[in-house]
Amino acid sequence: MDKVGKYEFLAEPFHCDFNGKLFMGHLGNHMLNAADFHSTARGFGMKYLMTIKRSWVLSRLAIEMIEMPTQYTKFTVETWVESAMRYFTSRNFRVIGEDGKVYGYGRSIWAMIDTESRQPTDIFSIDNGAINDWIEKEKECPIDKGGRVKMDDQAELVRTIDTYYNDIDINGHVNSVKYIEHVLDLWDLAWYKEHQIKRFEIAYVAEAHQGDQLSFYRTASGDSEYCVRICKEGDVETCRSKVTFFD
Amino acid sequence: MDKVGKYEFLAEPFHCDFNGKLFMGHLGNHMLNAADFHSTARGFGMKYLMTIKRSWVLSRLAIEMIEMPTQYTKFTVETWVESAMRYFTSRNFRVIGEDGKVYGYGRSIWAMIDTESRQPTDIFSIDNGAINDWIEKEKECPIDKGGRVKMDDQAELVRTIDTYYNDIDINGHVNSVKYIEHVLDLWDLAWYKEHQIKRFEIAYVAEAHQGDQLSFYRTASGDSEYCVRICKEGDVETCRSKVTFFD
Repeated sequence: MDKVGKYEFLAEPFHCDFNGKLFMGHLGNHMLNAADFHSTARGFGMKYLMTIKRSWVLSRLAIEMIEMPTQYTKFTVETWVESAMRYFTSRNFRVIGEDGKVYGYGRSIWAMIDTESRQPTDIFSIDNGAINDWIEKEKECPIDKGGRVKMDDQAELVRTIDTYYNDIDINGHVNSVKYIEHVLDLWDLAWYKEHQIKRFEIAYVAEAHQGDQLSFYRTASGDSEYCVRICKEGDVETCRSKVTFFD
Repeated sequence: MDKVGKYEFLAEPFHCDFNGKLFMGHLGNHMLNAADFHSTARGFGMKYLMTIKRSWVLSRLAIEMIEMPTQYTKFTVETWVESAMRYFTSRNFRVIGEDGKVYGYGRSIWAMIDTESRQPTDIFSIDNGAINDWIEKEKECPIDKGGRVKMDDQAELVRTIDTYYNDIDINGHVNSVKYIEHVLDLWDLAWYKEHQIKRFEIAYVAEAHQGDQLSFYRTASGDSEYCVRICKEGDVETCRSKVTFFD
C-alpha cells in the first residue's frame, strides 16, 4: 500500500457558496474523512482505536488554497503522515483536480487520547510504533506550518451564538467542522463578494458542548489577515483561528 | 438505463449526531444529490438546464425513517420519478443498506422555473416530454404523501436567528438543507436523547436571503407531532415543516 492515500470527492451543489465555490467547512470535512480513510486502511483508524479505548483528536488544521473547486468538480484529496512523535503526529493534504491541477494544501496535527481519562497517550504504543512505517518525508507540502495565533487584548467581540443539536458531534462536543463555519460566518456575503479565502487555520484548545454560548473575538493582524478567538462561558478559550484573504 | 438510479453514500463521522446516527439534514442532502445524479444521467439535470436558463426548484420534501444509518455505514439512495405533470414532478427515494435492509423512504415535489423570470415553466417542453420515458409507477414508496401543513394562530415563537454566509446557496437563497438543520435545532440534545425522528416534512414557500432573520413558530399538532412555520421579515412565510417523533 502506498504511503499516500488518495480519495475522490465531488463539490456537491449544496456544499457550494453563492459563488459556486466549495465551502471551506466542507473541504475541511473531506480532509478529515480522507485522514480517517487513510489511517483505517493502514491499521490505525478511529474504528480500531475505539476498540482499545483510544481516539485521534484533531489539534490543529491549516488549509491554504490557490483556488477552491467549483460546483460539480471532482477532486482528489491526497493525505500522508509527515512525521510522528510520541504525543503528536502531523498529517498533510494536497487537493488536486482530475487534470492534475493543484487546488491547495492542508496541514494538520493530531494527538491520541485515552477515551476514558481524556489524557494524551503514546502514539508509538499502537502496534509497536507501526505508524513509523507510513511516514512520507519526500512529498512536498509548500504551505506554512502555522503556529500559535497571537491575540492581543484589543480583539473585538463580534458575535455570540448559541450552540444547538446540529453543532454537536458523536463525542458530545462542538463539531470541528462547525467551528470552521461559525468563524467564516463572521464575514458577510458583501465581504465574500470582494474577498476570497487564501488560508484558514484553526487550533482546537478546549472542548465546548451543546448549550454553550460561543463568543467570537476578532482582530486584524495584517493586511487581509484576521485572528479570531472563540470562547465559551464568557472567557474560556475553545479555539483560535487565523483567516487570510487574497489581497 | 434503469428508471431507478442507485447511488452509494457513507454515514461520515462528522455528519453524525451525538448518538452516532446520520443527521437528517445530511440525509436530505444525499437525496438531493441522488436526484441530481439521476436526472443528469437521463438528460434533464441541473447542469443541462442551466444552459437553457431553466432550473429545478424543490417544492416539498418528506423523509420517513424506520432507522437512521449509523456512523461509517454505507447505504444506497435509490431514486425514481413517480409522476410528471406540466408544472410539477414527483420523485421518490428509498434508503437501503448493503444487506438490503430498508432504512426509510423519501418523497419530493419539484417545479421547473425559468431562471430569468423565476416563473414556472412547462416540464414537458424539455426534449419533447422526455421525462415521461422515465416514469416508474410500480416501485413502492409506502409513506404518506403529506400535504399542506396546517398551522393555527396559536403557534409559539420559539426562536429567531440571523442567517450568514454558510446558510446561502449558489442562487443566493437560504440553502434547502440548512432549513432542515435550523428546524431540527429547535429541539435540544436532552430531547433527542429521548426521542428519535420518525418523519420530517418541509414545504418551501418563499425564498429567504442572507441577512434575513428567520423566525420559527412551533405548535404541537398531535402526539409527538409538531408543525413549524418559518417566517422572514417578521411575518412573510418562507417554509412550513412538520416533524414527527417515534412514540
